[in-house]
Amino acid sequence: MNSKDKKQPAGLGKDNQSPIGIFDSGIGGLTVVKRLAATLPNENIVYFGDTARVPYGSKSNSTVVEYSVQNTKLLLSKYVKAIIVACNTASSIAIPTLKKEFNIPIIGMIEPGAKMALQKTRNKKIGVIGTRATTGNLAYSSEIKRIDDTANVIEKPCPLFVPLAEEGWTDHNATHEIAEEYLKELRRDGIDTLVLGCTHYPILTNVIQKIIGKNVNLIDSGVASAELIKEELQKLDLLTNSNTTGLQEFYVSDIQVKFKEVAELFLGKEIEHVHKVDLEELSLE
Amino acid sequence: MNSKDKKQPAGLGKDNQSPIGIFDSGIGGLTVVKRLAATLPNENIVYFGDTARVPYGSKSNSTVVEYSVQNTKLLLSKYVKAIIVACNTASSIAIPTLKKEFNIPIIGMIEPGAKMALQKTRNKKIGVIGTRATTGNLAYSSEIKRIDDTANVIEKPCPLFVPLAEEGWTDHNATHEIAEEYLKELRRDGIDTLVLGCTHYPILTNVIQKIIGKNVNLIDSGVASAELIKEELQKLDLLTNSNTTGLQEFYVSDIQVKFKEVAELFLGKEIEHVHKVDLEELSLE
Repeated sequence: MNSKDKKQPAGLGKDNQSPIGIFDSGIGGLTVVKRLAATLPNENIVYFGDTARVPYGSKSNSTVVEYSVQNTKLLLSKYVKAIIVACNTASSIAIPTLKKEFNIPIIGMIEPGAKMALQKTRNKKIGVIGTRATTGNLAYSSEIKRIDDTANVIEKPCPLFVPLAEEGWTDHNATHEIAEEYLKELRRDGIDTLVLGCTHYPILTNVIQKIIGKNVNLIDSGVASAELIKEELQKLDLLTNSNTTGLQEFYVSDIQVKFKEVAELFLGKEIEHVHKVDLEELSLE
Repeated sequence: MNSKDKKQPAGLGKDNQSPIGIFDSGIGGLTVVKRLAATLPNENIVYFGDTARVPYGSKSNSTVVEYSVQNTKLLLSKYVKAIIVACNTASSIAIPTLKKEFNIPIIGMIEPGAKMALQKTRNKKIGVIGTRATTGNLAYSSEIKRIDDTANVIEKPCPLFVPLAEEGWTDHNATHEIAEEYLKELRRDGIDTLVLGCTHYPILTNVIQKIIGKNVNLIDSGVASAELIKEELQKLDLLTNSNTTGLQEFYVSDIQVKFKEVAELFLGKEIEHVHKVDLEELSLE
């Protein structure tokens, strides 16, 4: 079976030993790999980070859909049995197209994060933090209100959190000052639940929890999506029956300076088996 | 004369009333527009910011050259008489190709910044701060040492300065803390001259000067390139003889949330005459 064989229907050739695929616009999705491996430790995982074309947040909707379809095809060529779209931008834009075009369980960040936030909140005051692109689209607000229109959602962009996470400044004074600046309004508004609407943000959980208050539930969409994919695979009888720790394989479209250091911070362990994918190969998939 | 007419040799159809063109991967280059307008207030200026494809620092050399050629063609279709490449990445990679392909004065950031640093330094200990991509390439070091191999150059990436500048946090406590963290080594090393190797950094001049010490010369490559383009146009007798304030026109490939606010912070005044260029149109230029 050839990865270039476009007639291969997605969904065929897969069994419960097949890996779960995850793609992201960059390396942020490695925090989702970490959550998925914690929830389903025996599953094999294939990750693709589109590091050459990051960020997706500044690109047009049609470009984000096109890239997401390419990324999905790349993962399918690795025989994945399900896909998690770890990029919040791609999740909010491309999921309907992906579900229509590919016959495989596909889960984004928005729906699981929104559902978990509604399960946890008591006062129905929910905060959402993310990049300017994600919060500007109000993707979480729309999804939360679609499920429960009595919920009160406040979104707040926190653009400095991504570079702070990439610098690894998880406990720097500056990080505390910046978190205070970004989160003070949400604290004043009395939210009891806060969605981390960007895959980088779990790296800063300690600071965020400290500033927003220890009684506020933090929602990690990576945890939520791992729970949901577990349910879906269970229903389809596609969970692995292996008892050994799953293998992980990583593909990226570019390897930047400091890639390994940042990737390992996000993944929470040493990163091995990293392959570079040519952009040209990607657009021909 | 048609902008699509590829046989039109660059350099023809231009006179001393023609505008000066500036392109950048995004909006950072607006700080260069500000400097250029201060140096040559009567010149008309056309700016192109490739905001849909920013950042260039994470892209391959061939892609950066390809985009730079496209951006140059776009500016030539506006009949510019000279071009400033305000993007440090494009400056360090694409200038030789641009100079070869286009018969018009073309000036980047690296050469003027390096020359001015060498003019100002007394102890020949020069610091360079920039994005991880720029400092990783050691573009300024190479150029400074090419001119004077006895100079001692220390480069330091300051990734948080770009989002801090875009947030407009020019005097926030967090900015001081971050500048302290980034600049303490350079201060300890006893540099007497510091190159701001990223077009965003002039926004943070006050904090940077305070932390690095008031006796250290800050080199703004935008100022240096404006001086150099003035000299070149003088030689070619292409400076305007107008006595009225020059007109400014702005083109971008995408208009983001908060674009106007950030653009005005960088430009130092209200931004008008902003046009959106289609990426497709750009690649066909």
